[in-house]
Amino acid sequence: MYKELTKEQLLAEKEKVQKTYDEYKAMGLKLDMSRGKPAPMQLDLTEDMLLHCLDGEYVSENGIDCRNYGVLDGIYEAKRLFMPMLGVGRYELIVGGNSSLCMMYDSIARAMLLGVLGGKKPWGKYEHVKFLCPSPGYDRHFAICESMGIEMITVPYKSDGPDMDMVEKLVAEDEEIKGIWCVPMYSNPSGITYSDEVVRRFANLSPKADDFRIFWDNAYCVHHLTDTPDTLLNILDECKKTGKEDMVYIFTSTSKISFPGGGLAVLAASEANINFIKNQMSYQTIGYDKLNQLRHARFFKDFEGIKEHMKLHRAIIAPKFKVVLYMLEKEIEPLQIGEWHKPSGGYFVAFNGLPGTAKRIVELCREAGVVLTGAGATFPYGKDPEDRNIRIAPTFPTVDELAKAMEIFCTAVKLASIEVLTK
Amino acid sequence: MYKELTKEQLLAEKEKVQKTYDEYKAMGLKLDMSRGKPAPMQLDLTEDMLLHCLDGEYVSENGIDCRNYGVLDGIYEAKRLFMPMLGVGRYELIVGGNSSLCMMYDSIARAMLLGVLGGKKPWGKYEHVKFLCPSPGYDRHFAICESMGIEMITVPYKSDGPDMDMVEKLVAEDEEIKGIWCVPMYSNPSGITYSDEVVRRFANLSPKADDFRIFWDNAYCVHHLTDTPDTLLNILDECKKTGKEDMVYIFTSTSKISFPGGGLAVLAASEANINFIKNQMSYQTIGYDKLNQLRHARFFKDFEGIKEHMKLHRAIIAPKFKVVLYMLEKEIEPLQIGEWHKPSGGYFVAFNGLPGTAKRIVELCREAGVVLTGAGATFPYGKDPEDRNIRIAPTFPTVDELAKAMEIFCTAVKLASIEVLTK
Repeated sequence: MYKELTKEQLLAEKEKVQKTYDEYKAMGLKLDMSRGKPAPMQLDLTEDMLLHCLDGEYVSENGIDCRNYGVLDGIYEAKRLFMPMLGVGRYELIVGGNSSLCMMYDSIARAMLLGVLGGKKPWGKYEHVKFLCPSPGYDRHFAICESMGIEMITVPYKSDGPDMDMVEKLVAEDEEIKGIWCVPMYSNPSGITYSDEVVRRFANLSPKADDFRIFWDNAYCVHHLTDTPDTLLNILDECKKTGKEDMVYIFTSTSKISFPGGGLAVLAASEANINFIKNQMSYQTIGYDKLNQLRHARFFKDFEGIKEHMKLHRAIIAPKFKVVLYMLEKEIEPLQIGEWHKPSGGYFVAFNGLPGTAKRIVELCREAGVVLTGAGATFPYGKDPEDRNIRIAPTFPTVDELAKAMEIFCTAVKLASIEVLTK
Repeated sequence: MYKELTKEQLLAEKEKVQKTYDEYKAMGLKLDMSRGKPAPMQLDLTEDMLLHCLDGEYVSENGIDCRNYGVLDGIYEAKRLFMPMLGVGRYELIVGGNSSLCMMYDSIARAMLLGVLGGKKPWGKYEHVKFLCPSPGYDRHFAICESMGIEMITVPYKSDGPDMDMVEKLVAEDEEIKGIWCVPMYSNPSGITYSDEVVRRFANLSPKADDFRIFWDNAYCVHHLTDTPDTLLNILDECKKTGKEDMVYIFTSTSKISFPGGGLAVLAASEANINFIKNQMSYQTIGYDKLNQLRHARFFKDFEGIKEHMKLHRAIIAPKFKVVLYMLEKEIEPLQIGEWHKPSGGYFVAFNGLPGTAKRIVELCREAGVVLTGAGATFPYGKDPEDRNIRIAPTFPTVDELAKAMEIFCTAVKLASIEVLTK
């Protein structure tokens, strides 16, 4: 345990760690743990979707020629894949294009320009627009807000979700708070899943703004890593119980089920919201790529097919998470210079070092050839107040590359920690 | 010639025409000439793109795994298809998703929310935003403006393009005019192509607004119907000559080359515009569907491949245009109750009836089972000041269906004309 060592002992330790680090650095490695990117082997799992799924038959079950114009909200067989996945009905979702990020961005752009159902005026007509940003969170969520000049208010996480006392208080007081970002299951990056109580408190929110929306990015709802997966309460059902079903937009995609950038994205919400959004959207496009929707529907057949398919992904990526956790437990835990949640699913391990070490760890890793997500990226404006959170994305490298990368990571953590402790 | 007939003669003629109309009506037909939709036979032409184009090889020429994230502006082999088509360089275009309409909508949404290169502030921060709308034009262009509260100013067409005296005067005077819609080649719906002089006058515009853009929707640039196709001057080249290359956004798509809703859309502009837009766009998405880009690049190989392919489309649709024009020349021309341009390409024939007849013609056709684009749709706010323009879209029906639909159309034109002349 580093904290119990004297300064002299720490400096002696530093000499050893520095030597190890220099050896790694001399190897000139190039390893990438920066983004939640599936490995090529995962993409091979859906190859048949590209090779044989359509096989000359392009007409949907209900007679739509998927090669031609039409069907703004997606073909029915594609909707049917996602209805049980998100627990919503046929008129409560839109199957869109290749990017749920794009659906989220567009939802905010429409809210800014045109307004949302029940709102007095477009968000953009308010002098300030604010979003609550539970952090650490997903950097691309925060970037959307930043690009549109939406002020971000950081909300800390507890072990079972955002600090709901703070969320409840803020939304009830401030009409300028128009939304909150949530990754409710296997959260990006911390890996936690919101408890039933947290979901119920979300469904019970009483925002001062009449045009407030919960952005519920359920990106990892079927991305389990263990036999005892987390479970998440259905937010739309809970909102129906409180009569606030128009308060939530739900997003998901197959980016990490089929192909990132070549999959399907989904927006789910109350029927009233969906009808309102479809009307706004009808000015933007005639429809999304139905051929790709058909490919997905034919390949997976139904939600059971998706669940079975995700076991194949798990077989490939669970060992990678094991490597990350094994290395952290072996190298870091005994020294008590870091914390992390052991996720039951998702794509990330969030590492919290000693305060003031994250930037330095990322820098040391980069200089030794290991690319990590930039320190601070998981907080609004890229500013981690304690400079301690680092997102580790283990899926893309091979197990061997990952083991090497984690050796370097742990060495960098030790070095940065000693530097801070001896300052 | 109806105009030379006496009222009694017209009423006698009406009785005959009414009888013919009633006979058609009794047939209970269902024919659709409403939208510019390719026929199924045209879609069969690109079937191999779906069946064999990828065949297990998903890596682009420069080593990108097209099944995974990345490459915001499109893979290079897809860009190469469109560079000669639009006459632009590698850094002057973005190959996007499945819809050029969406790229146009998004371009305006970004301009409203974030602003364009060189603008003092976002368009949305001006009290009023106005667009010039050469009319008759494309209804979906006008709908975008209407949905965003952008005021539309109708500009009449001359035989070689919009009334440029009016365009030049208006943009020079009014800072609130931020854009103009153009379909410069085989215009939707009139079928005319802008003359070299008109294109040069566009490149010479001196708008008062520092953030004015020409929306150059070159949707039909390779959609020729004859051996003597129209030619269009390269607007970006012309703008470079006048030093105003940031003034134009060019759009096109393969919706009527490969698959409508399953094709590729393109935005081309000056390199400075493209870089500015790519930066804005990077908040919206990580990238478009590169697998579909790869399919298109492999199938067409190069621009020559696209040009050859368009000959196959022409073989299918040129006879349909012949049917429309033959019927109009045979039934309407001798009576002098309508005018039209004989297009050398594109997807439409624009029919101009006697003033005050368009709504009635569309109504009569609908009651006899022939669906046309709504009268007025080709003008801002759906209001044709003279109520005379009707867009005929001949591509989707078969030749036989079309012949029948045109018989009914011509009968309806006669009936509506007599009604107006005898009022």
